[in-house]
Amino acid sequence: MIVTERHNNGVALITLDRPAARNALSFALLEALREALHAAEDARCVVLAANGPAFSAGHDLRELTAARAEADGGRAFYARTMALCSQVMQRVVNHPVPVIAAVEGIATAAGCQLVASCDLAVATPQSRFCTPGVDIALFCSTPAVAVARAIPRKAAMEMLLTGRWVHAEEARALGLINRIAEDARAEALTLAGSIAARSAVTVRMGKRGFNAQCGLPLAEAYDAASAVMVENMMAADAEEGIGAFLGKRAPVWQDR
Amino acid sequence: MIVTERHNNGVALITLDRPAARNALSFALLEALREALHAAEDARCVVLAANGPAFSAGHDLRELTAARAEADGGRAFYARTMALCSQVMQRVVNHPVPVIAAVEGIATAAGCQLVASCDLAVATPQSRFCTPGVDIALFCSTPAVAVARAIPRKAAMEMLLTGRWVHAEEARALGLINRIAEDARAEALTLAGSIAARSAVTVRMGKRGFNAQCGLPLAEAYDAASAVMVENMMAADAEEGIGAFLGKRAPVWQDR
Amino acid sequence: MIVTERHNNGVALITLDRPAARNALSFALLEALREALHAAEDARCVVLAANGPAFSAGHDLRELTAARAEADGGRAFYARTMALCSQVMQRVVNHPVPVIAAVEGIATAAGCQLVASCDLAVATPQSRFCTPGVDIALFCSTPAVAVARAIPRKAAMEMLLTGRWVHAEEARALGLINRIAEDARAEALTLAGSIAARSAVTVRMGKRGFNAQCGLPLAEAYDAASAVMVENMMAADAEEGIGAFLGKRAPVWQDR
Repeated sequence: MIVTERHNNGVALITLDRPAARNALSFALLEALREALHAAEDARCVVLAANGPAFSAGHDLRELTAARAEADGGRAFYARTMALCSQVMQRVVNHPVPVIAAVEGIATAAGCQLVASCDLAVATPQSRFCTPGVDIALFCSTPAVAVARAIPRKAAMEMLLTGRWVHAEEARALGLINRIAEDARAEALTLAGSIAARSAVTVRMGKRGFNAQCGLPLAEAYDAASAVMVENMMAADAEEGIGAFLGKRAPVWQDR
Repeated sequence: MIVTERHNNGVALITLDRPAARNALSFALLEALREALHAAEDARCVVLAANGPAFSAGHDLRELTAARAEADGGRAFYARTMALCSQVMQRVVNHPVPVIAAVEGIATAAGCQLVASCDLAVATPQSRFCTPGVDIALFCSTPAVAVARAIPRKAAMEMLLTGRWVHAEEARALGLINRIAEDARAEALTLAGSIAARSAVTVRMGKRGFNAQCGLPLAEAYDAASAVMVENMMAADAEEGIGAFLGKRAPVWQDR
Repeated sequence: MIVTERHNNGVALITLDRPAARNALSFALLEALREALHAAEDARCVVLAANGPAFSAGHDLRELTAARAEADGGRAFYARTMALCSQVMQRVVNHPVPVIAAVEGIATAAGCQLVASCDLAVATPQSRFCTPGVDIALFCSTPAVAVARAIPRKAAMEMLLTGRWVHAEEARALGLINRIAEDARAEALTLAGSIAARSAVTVRMGKRGFNAQCGLPLAEAYDAASAVMVENMMAADAEEGIGAFLGKRAPVWQDR
């Protein structure tokens, strides 16, 4: 259901492997993804890919429908599913190392949310994105959380209210993805490799600090980020990195 | 001053009809717009259009100037006008159904604010936008509230500090509008019709949920949006919509 | 280290003049910039330029390294430096008049942060921007505060995690700068001159009001901005500006 590879350079490649179901995010797949993300916390960078023509088609509608047979009409299961899904999305955002989506194919609804939640995203030119819940009377309200934080507001509203497809090039212009490449997985792995070659303590400190300051008022954001900078300066890798730069030599990080 | 049509598909077309005054937002026009928006709360979608070459030229400067003759130099009237105007703009944002601007011509100052406040906007290729208050020593401070939430910060500052025109294509790239069409009103009505054809309860739940989560920290946003998703799943239309999708048939919404 | 000119039109041109050090923001240069910004508070608009091929290369790495010899390994100096730098960046944002960056060359790390912090920015076609701290194990955590508020989130993360160069045209598309001009300094001065020709009280009120509302929830933002609009209407320049507009004549501002 999930295949994880750990590369020699410290990159963890987590691949959704439920291609026949278009990688629909069943409860079990969400649990497996949560565990895979947890297991990759000691990696230097994570790439999130998927096997088959769909990166992910979002929630598993058959599973959601089956739960209607329960005594409460499914309410408890839906609450557990949404809580788990939101937890997984936040684990991506708050993962200690950068998470890069490698999108080959379509990413819809919660699948689009997963791409929006990643720190970076690479997609093939043929990839497409949408939040079409409105078509089946299940508005993409949780995907909206991630999408509205990645792209301009009116663009997000159009995706949510019309469910229309956004092609790779438009997705890039909007800020939903960073790069377009014929072999998106290879490009994402190269990008991850370049991040993995940096000082791990620095990348971790940087990502955590970025998220910590993002929603704060300006003065508080600067207080938080300044404290991160001071800690970063005191780290051995910064002494090495700055010294190497001034000495015009290649740095050697502590943890390599 | 305002013409409202209710179409058979549930779309309310609200048309500003003060063309000789370039649809300047006088106190009376703002009151009429507030009432028209209120009366359209049972519609399935709203299109906001305007007759004449200007979508709206913003506040009514003659009316504002006339108030200077009052004992307080106009202060009370200005306070009432700004409160009313801000109330109308927030009614657009918080309207229970999506509001789509159909811009045919110029939208300036509070007219530009009205476009920025809508959920979606369609404009003709000849439409132009600006916030030129700085030219008459009345900085577009309230329009800035809406514009700064729709487009990138430096672009907003440039519009506000220079008052320069932004043409339709640039407005689309910035995120101020969604689409450009020769017949913007027809395109907006088509777009509204496609939204009106969806489940009304879902569209309402989705728009309200979107606004509720937008300004929240991520964890709170997910808690709020997850609760919306659970309620949405329990609605009859979601059962019908998902069932129709899985059964490869057209859905029939409860309220049609 | 800093050269300030006051032009007849009320524009203050503040020029970083440490070209041999690529205008690295040493403690002394930051102090000088803080004083120059303070001294320009009575200007009508500020242009921030730099001599030499680099607008600014960010923090002074030699100075930071020298402080490692101190008893505390430099911690106190780093804390003072980051506090001062953050104070300077916030003085740009909160400066009473608009601050326009004129970028001729590269702007990296805290130099890129300085551009991002300005209200507006003009750059030459050859200008480039990056936040490459990750390469030397000093993540650009404080630059991230400014960059993340200027451009879309995934674009900011890519700059921070990869350190890659962003050329002028891409910087404009992202919202990091407003305009590209062969003579960026002349263009910035022209832009500043057009702002300086407006009512000074209005421009000041407008910029302060913009910042005050930006981070607020919508209802609070409208309350704040509406109060600004009422005060603005009561100012003599607004009476003059609106009167001149209605009378089809040129306005004469109080403070000219």
